[in-house]
Amino acid sequence: MKILSREVLKEIEERLSKYMDSEVEFILKIGNYILDSGGKRLRPVLVLTFSKLLKGENEERDYPIAVAMEYLHTASLLHDDVVDGAETRRGKAAANRVFGNDTTVLTGDYMYANALYLFSVYGDIDMIRNVSDAVKKMSEGQLLELKKIGDIDMREEDYFRILEGKTAVLFGSCCYVGTALGGGSDKQKKSAYNYGLSIGIAFQLIDDLLDYIADEKKLGKPVCNDLREGKITYPLLSVLDKLSEDEKEFVKGVIRDLNPDKKHIERVKNMVKEKGGFDKTIEKAREYVDTAVRELENFPDSEYLKELEELAKYIVEREF
Amino acid sequence: MKILSREVLKEIEERLSKYMDSEVEFILKIGNYILDSGGKRLRPVLVLTFSKLLKGENEERDYPIAVAMEYLHTASLLHDDVVDGAETRRGKAAANRVFGNDTTVLTGDYMYANALYLFSVYGDIDMIRNVSDAVKKMSEGQLLELKKIGDIDMREEDYFRILEGKTAVLFGSCCYVGTALGGGSDKQKKSAYNYGLSIGIAFQLIDDLLDYIADEKKLGKPVCNDLREGKITYPLLSVLDKLSEDEKEFVKGVIRDLNPDKKHIERVKNMVKEKGGFDKTIEKAREYVDTAVRELENFPDSEYLKELEELAKYIVEREF
Repeated sequence: MKILSREVLKEIEERLSKYMDSEVEFILKIGNYILDSGGKRLRPVLVLTFSKLLKGENEERDYPIAVAMEYLHTASLLHDDVVDGAETRRGKAAANRVFGNDTTVLTGDYMYANALYLFSVYGDIDMIRNVSDAVKKMSEGQLLELKKIGDIDMREEDYFRILEGKTAVLFGSCCYVGTALGGGSDKQKKSAYNYGLSIGIAFQLIDDLLDYIADEKKLGKPVCNDLREGKITYPLLSVLDKLSEDEKEFVKGVIRDLNPDKKHIERVKNMVKEKGGFDKTIEKAREYVDTAVRELENFPDSEYLKELEELAKYIVEREF
Repeated sequence: MKILSREVLKEIEERLSKYMDSEVEFILKIGNYILDSGGKRLRPVLVLTFSKLLKGENEERDYPIAVAMEYLHTASLLHDDVVDGAETRRGKAAANRVFGNDTTVLTGDYMYANALYLFSVYGDIDMIRNVSDAVKKMSEGQLLELKKIGDIDMREEDYFRILEGKTAVLFGSCCYVGTALGGGSDKQKKSAYNYGLSIGIAFQLIDDLLDYIADEKKLGKPVCNDLREGKITYPLLSVLDKLSEDEKEFVKGVIRDLNPDKKHIERVKNMVKEKGGFDKTIEKAREYVDTAVRELENFPDSEYLKELEELAKYIVEREF
């Protein structure tokens, strides 16, 4: 894909270092530790692509903003690791394990603030409104997720709210901001936001599915990790009403168990599979991809537009 | 003082609740827990006073911005409690003890984002630049403080950088933003920032002194808490070069001890006192107050100006 070209990705990497310009050495060290551990840089790519789509691109302004969005993502990962007491992240020891909770929290704060600072230099007030609203929703989503741990009566509405906060709003915001950089209309900014939101939801739905079915090695964490942590995600949620009272009680026991038995996990996994939870999740993700693609109709046709369409589809099909 | 009038403080309290408008109930609960535990609301008062000083005040715009500054402060306290593993805050159990580290971190994130959101609605891009730069420096200062724990060779330059980050930059930012709200010139904004920075440094110097000499009850934590945590503050720092090698070794042992003996703490305290560390700290704080007062010369004379002068002086004299 042109939007994921080597040149663009290289430029993103360089700028990710460039704007982490703290005089406090320690921040650079931990910042680079987490930034170096990779990730797909999807967020900055979305910013740049929407700007290019409208032919309003200006590299000296777009790259710092694209990088700012990656900093926001990274900051949320750092705090997430503290919140989850994570052991690993992207196959490496999680930052909190290497540097401690204290340093990890504060470095996250620094990256949040640095992102907003970049917006104040290269962006405008409308972008900042969109982005700070996204960060509000991110923390709300994560808090709601904590609150709902072990709660078998979680409603679908809550699940999607968690999903939006965890992943989707930041995707939405990237697309919104890119469109604003490209000089798009209010209508286009809204469509871009909805595109990002929808692919973000699809992305997280597939992530939640992969947590059930992927290879441990590929995942970098044990299979059914969510279940182990008492988190109910769509594959299970979508079949809850198909379970007998006994089955439901069994699932309840597993998600409330702080250290569930491997066999019990396996049994829940099989239940979810047999009742069609895996297929339902793929179906749901495809619906969101369709929504995302429809939003693109509000943009002029171009090769970038086609790639955004492909990107949306790739999100669901990536592992199947 | 007129700037600390009951009406103003009441309005601040009401607005502090009003703009914490999350739909996630839990955020309101923990947000209110920490907001209700009081504090002097000095930061919003500074915002409002600088705006009034220039007669450019507009309550419907100034109060949300004033409140946003208190949210930033509160967010940093929440994260600070996690960083310090605090037991108490303002005489109540610290938020991390009541709600857990996870919830505390995320609620802090929410408050940071909410503050920036308020700025994007009621402020402007120049204010956001100043404020996000302040938040960067806050986390840098706190990280540097962590890094310097137990380090007897800490330089005065590092101490003041920590001080600025911990307390002073946010005071500076409050005054800057208030001046911007009031329609002040660039020169006035800079002076206001320096006023706030200077009283912030004076404030923290006195706080660091009170940690040595205040009554435990008043302090709400054990005397010489900084020393116990291995933190070298100005009273000790200012007399380090007056200590013999043996005394220095003794101090080093105490600040590196995770659980120092009460008698050893007492001995360090007496050393600091005898070598003049307490007096030097007061003297230093007074220097900063003088600097602060001089910065006020760039503002038109008014009763508010006199009160800002008084406020600066009160910071040092509050306990003596």
